[in-house]
Amino acid sequence: GGGWEMQTVTLIPGDGIGPEISAAVMKIFEAAKAPIRWEERNVTAIKGPGGRWMIPPDAKESMDRSKIGLKGPLKTPIAAGHPSMNLLLRKTFDLYANVRPCVSIEGYKTPYTDVNLVTIRENTEGEYSGIEHVIVDGVVQSIKLITEEASRRIAEYAFEYARNNQRTSVTAVHKANIMRMSDGLFLRKCREVAENYKDIKFTEMYLDTVCLNMVQDPTQFDVLVMPNLYGDILSDLCAGLIGGLGVTPSGNIGANGVAIFESVHGTAPDIAGMDLANPTALLLSAVMMLRHMGLHDHGNKIQVACFDTIRDKKVLTKDLGGNSKCSSLQMRFAVASRIWN
Amino acid sequence: GGGWEMQTVTLIPGDGIGPEISAAVMKIFEAAKAPIRWEERNVTAIKGPGGRWMIPPDAKESMDRSKIGLKGPLKTPIAAGHPSMNLLLRKTFDLYANVRPCVSIEGYKTPYTDVNLVTIRENTEGEYSGIEHVIVDGVVQSIKLITEEASRRIAEYAFEYARNNQRTSVTAVHKANIMRMSDGLFLRKCREVAENYKDIKFTEMYLDTVCLNMVQDPTQFDVLVMPNLYGDILSDLCAGLIGGLGVTPSGNIGANGVAIFESVHGTAPDIAGMDLANPTALLLSAVMMLRHMGLHDHGNKIQVACFDTIRDKKVLTKDLGGNSKCSSLQMRFAVASRIWN
Ligand SMILES: CC(C)[C@H](C(=O)O)[C@@H](O)C(=O)O
Ligand SMILES: CC(C)[C@H](C(=O)O)[C@@H](O)C(=O)O
Repeated sequence: GGGWEMQTVTLIPGDGIGPEISAAVMKIFEAAKAPIRWEERNVTAIKGPGGRWMIPPDAKESMDRSKIGLKGPLKTPIAAGHPSMNLLLRKTFDLYANVRPCVSIEGYKTPYTDVNLVTIRENTEGEYSGIEHVIVDGVVQSIKLITEEASRRIAEYAFEYARNNQRTSVTAVHKANIMRMSDGLFLRKCREVAENYKDIKFTEMYLDTVCLNMVQDPTQFDVLVMPNLYGDILSDLCAGLIGGLGVTPSGNIGANGVAIFESVHGTAPDIAGMDLANPTALLLSAVMMLRHMGLHDHGNKIQVACFDTIRDKKVLTKDLGGNSKCSSLQMRFAVASRIWN
Repeated sequence: GGGWEMQTVTLIPGDGIGPEISAAVMKIFEAAKAPIRWEERNVTAIKGPGGRWMIPPDAKESMDRSKIGLKGPLKTPIAAGHPSMNLLLRKTFDLYANVRPCVSIEGYKTPYTDVNLVTIRENTEGEYSGIEHVIVDGVVQSIKLITEEASRRIAEYAFEYARNNQRTSVTAVHKANIMRMSDGLFLRKCREVAENYKDIKFTEMYLDTVCLNMVQDPTQFDVLVMPNLYGDILSDLCAGLIGGLGVTPSGNIGANGVAIFESVHGTAPDIAGMDLANPTALLLSAVMMLRHMGLHDHGNKIQVACFDTIRDKKVLTKDLGGNSKCSSLQMRFAVASRIWN
């Protein structure tokens, strides 16, 4: 339905299958009359003044203005010596929270049903500090950095997310029995923040116990919040429970209202340009984006269209168990979205 | 059959349900005529000269002599200020390799079938260095320590294990894309050692990718080797795939021929002394122990008895889906083991 003001989103189509699945998402958005104006940008790192890697100024400028990005997969590092684009984007926009809702998709069979949880990963510090030393020959140390500020910020994000998304519990994942000071600090901040959210149940669990329980019964979890590396692991583990990276959306929330939504699968160079790619993960990430922008009706509409299409199994790409083209699946999604107008 | 020389094993019954399940294992061993003489010891830490925590001298002396321990669950830490007994035992006997075979148990339903893999965890360094600092107020660092020596030692153990146990591949699990120096060193040592084991296929995989692939299809994995924390996580995750800690055996291999086999579940204080505990994990750990001691026939016999009993489902403890007593399950295991004599 009309009457919506157009909002700008910076589109980073990415490499490999990125352009195809981005095109598919744009067409579905058009069918669903989502009030989005796309501004396409390439983010491949360039060398800036002083030899530091940076994303191209026009991409940075677009993101700074639109605040919202949608991103396909990036070939990364693009060559030896190049930085990881994921890390560079996180740093450039202070994307401190990686959010991954993992929800079982009806009709797409995995060993689990009724998974419905969200992993929230601290995305800026911890084991990703990049500080490492050789102490003596054959002895190396890496430094895990935990700060009060980043821990409080991610804990607050997790509880706000839970409250705003009708979720009832937050579990802090840690190894404070081993890393008493660093994970201890993270955990303390979670506890403190929990005090301000009496409507949300707060629990704490060791990372190893979470992994054990997760594969035995993932339905016991709701929102999980954790330091960087644990989030790297758990977010992929949980994606596996519902069918993998091809169907799992992801969002990166930054300071100053910036957010980038992205599919976290690879560029699949072997099928790039062959109209065989599955646009689902990028589409569901775009749905997260719509909700983040307050466009709940459009988001819901497209999500229902997506899940209906997967459930009825008539048009599916190969990785989803069918033999249809990307463009056919896109059309089906689009038709299903249009019905709702 | 007779003709076997008796060998001594140090038995650490442990706390809670430990004594019951240890008694069960001893009876089954008797029925199977396993040539083991048990030397029972308590390992609860005491304060030694200079105030340092140590395991009691008679326990240390028994282990030094027998070289082989079988251990039930320990309440740990026993009180505030006490050390973790797991960590103290690892340190005391330089138990550098934690080995966990995870094999699907026929008749015990989980979301997975045909799991057949082994996690080998470096057990002495990495994130467990215990070195942490407050840098400034609100900023803490933990140090992950990786050495060439420990990395080579665990890699060699993994490849030797693979070769001696008719396994065909070893996967090194790492995050060398992030921790380039520390995980990089670990990975380099794995690669070097792999050169000496051309009969074993060597692969490398990111920890997050392993977790994702593991929950989607664990049958693709064989032997996995990894630094301490990753092993903590993956060994519990994999135990979850086959039914949890109640059915998963574990062995800790040390320097100088020392080894301690243990069940890794808790002490279950709520059911302690009620004849309700499940001795399976300790029994399967004892089977690993027999094989480690070269007593393959006895080990196989007891393992077959154990799996037959679980498969035919007539006598099972509650956690295994039945309603029998620990002593009934033990008798059933024992009878099945005796048939083979
Ligand atoms: C590519 C790599 C830097 C990254 C990480 O380890 O964070 C990836 O696994 C991710 O989760 O985005
Ligand atoms: C109890 C704790 C010290 C331990 C660890 O983290 O190593 C436990 O999880 C284990 O795996 O033995």
